[in-house]
Amino acid sequence: MRLRNKPWAKDLIQAHPEAILDRPLNMAGHWQQRFNKVQPLELELGSGKGQFIIEKAHQNPDHNFIAMELQTAAAAMILHKQVAAKLPNLQILIDNGQKLTELFKPGEIAKIYLNFSDPWPKSKHTKRRLTSPNFLKLYQQVLPPKGQLEFKTDNQGLFEYSLVSLTDFGMQLEQVSLDLHASELQATNILTEYEEKFAGKGQRIYYLAAHFSA
Amino acid sequence: MRLRNKPWAKDLIQAHPEAILDRPLNMAGHWQQRFNKVQPLELELGSGKGQFIIEKAHQNPDHNFIAMELQTAAAAMILHKQVAAKLPNLQILIDNGQKLTELFKPGEIAKIYLNFSDPWPKSKHTKRRLTSPNFLKLYQQVLPPKGQLEFKTDNQGLFEYSLVSLTDFGMQLEQVSLDLHASELQATNILTEYEEKFAGKGQRIYYLAAHFSA
Repeated sequence: MRLRNKPWAKDLIQAHPEAILDRPLNMAGHWQQRFNKVQPLELELGSGKGQFIIEKAHQNPDHNFIAMELQTAAAAMILHKQVAAKLPNLQILIDNGQKLTELFKPGEIAKIYLNFSDPWPKSKHTKRRLTSPNFLKLYQQVLPPKGQLEFKTDNQGLFEYSLVSLTDFGMQLEQVSLDLHASELQATNILTEYEEKFAGKGQRIYYLAAHFSA
Repeated sequence: MRLRNKPWAKDLIQAHPEAILDRPLNMAGHWQQRFNKVQPLELELGSGKGQFIIEKAHQNPDHNFIAMELQTAAAAMILHKQVAAKLPNLQILIDNGQKLTELFKPGEIAKIYLNFSDPWPKSKHTKRRLTSPNFLKLYQQVLPPKGQLEFKTDNQGLFEYSLVSLTDFGMQLEQVSLDLHASELQATNILTEYEEKFAGKGQRIYYLAAHFSA
């Protein structure tokens, strides 16, 4: 969802070059230098306001994380949280998912998370869905062989589309939940802002973990 | 579900050798001889009382169908309907799904339907689920390359399991609906007795069509 513009966003971003990069050039292959320790690097594509990735990084100090978000206003809200949290294993990246293969070297990302991605329900917008084959091709390039993807959404149509799209691409499903919040997975599930709001209204959350075949 | 014994079942079955076979031997490769015309042969595994397959055969005179059912009492109820309907493109087979590769030659079946199969929820019974790898292996042997499977159930756990099991076996999903009766597929959906009863109570019906990779 599009956020209202934040007048303080640009200043905050400029004040924290150690925590956030805005459309960087020549970073491919060098991301581990942005972190205290070299350890597996995971990426959330479309981090929104960042609740998921902040908590994920907090709970997993043995992994590095990148919150990737196209909207400056949203990225600034993640940064605002990170300035307080000072997580050494979290970096914020403002850029478009289309640029993944320019931003990262093959295998540089260990795992990708997609949370409540825009459903783009019209069929003429299929290519914009983050689980469409053109995006899967990009993910496969920055992930190692059998690289993993985790995806959750409350949008039934997007989830149905994604199951077909992923397996048509040759990906294997590892785990599926058609009602995440009622499942045993909920014990370790980290909620996004959006998820917190909508699951409270009894909306089902769909979840899958899958990996590429090679 | 297990049906009460029908005292008339055995007599009816014996009276209609043209319509039903009980654990036949040496039928592999010869099924088309049981029908008026040679045309693609589709099989429902676990036909219950037969409402689905009777209507399917009625709507598709250009295909031959086999209603396969292990329970004699259920098979007799299908036969009872078929004696009245006299569909030239429907045969009934009493036998165990485990016997598929003895009953059919490779490629003899064009497509398999699984409708509301027993969920066998306990993990020690996984192998009995009709979407477990040991059954998928049998289906693959009697189907042609890229042979198709259609599956529907109201059981969320079985559907989640099946999505993972099928794709782990290398199958590709062609279509998925997480609420079949609310989808556009419902216009052509043929209901089973069980489905009619439970969907009326607002239970979601899950549906998938998939094919083997080779």
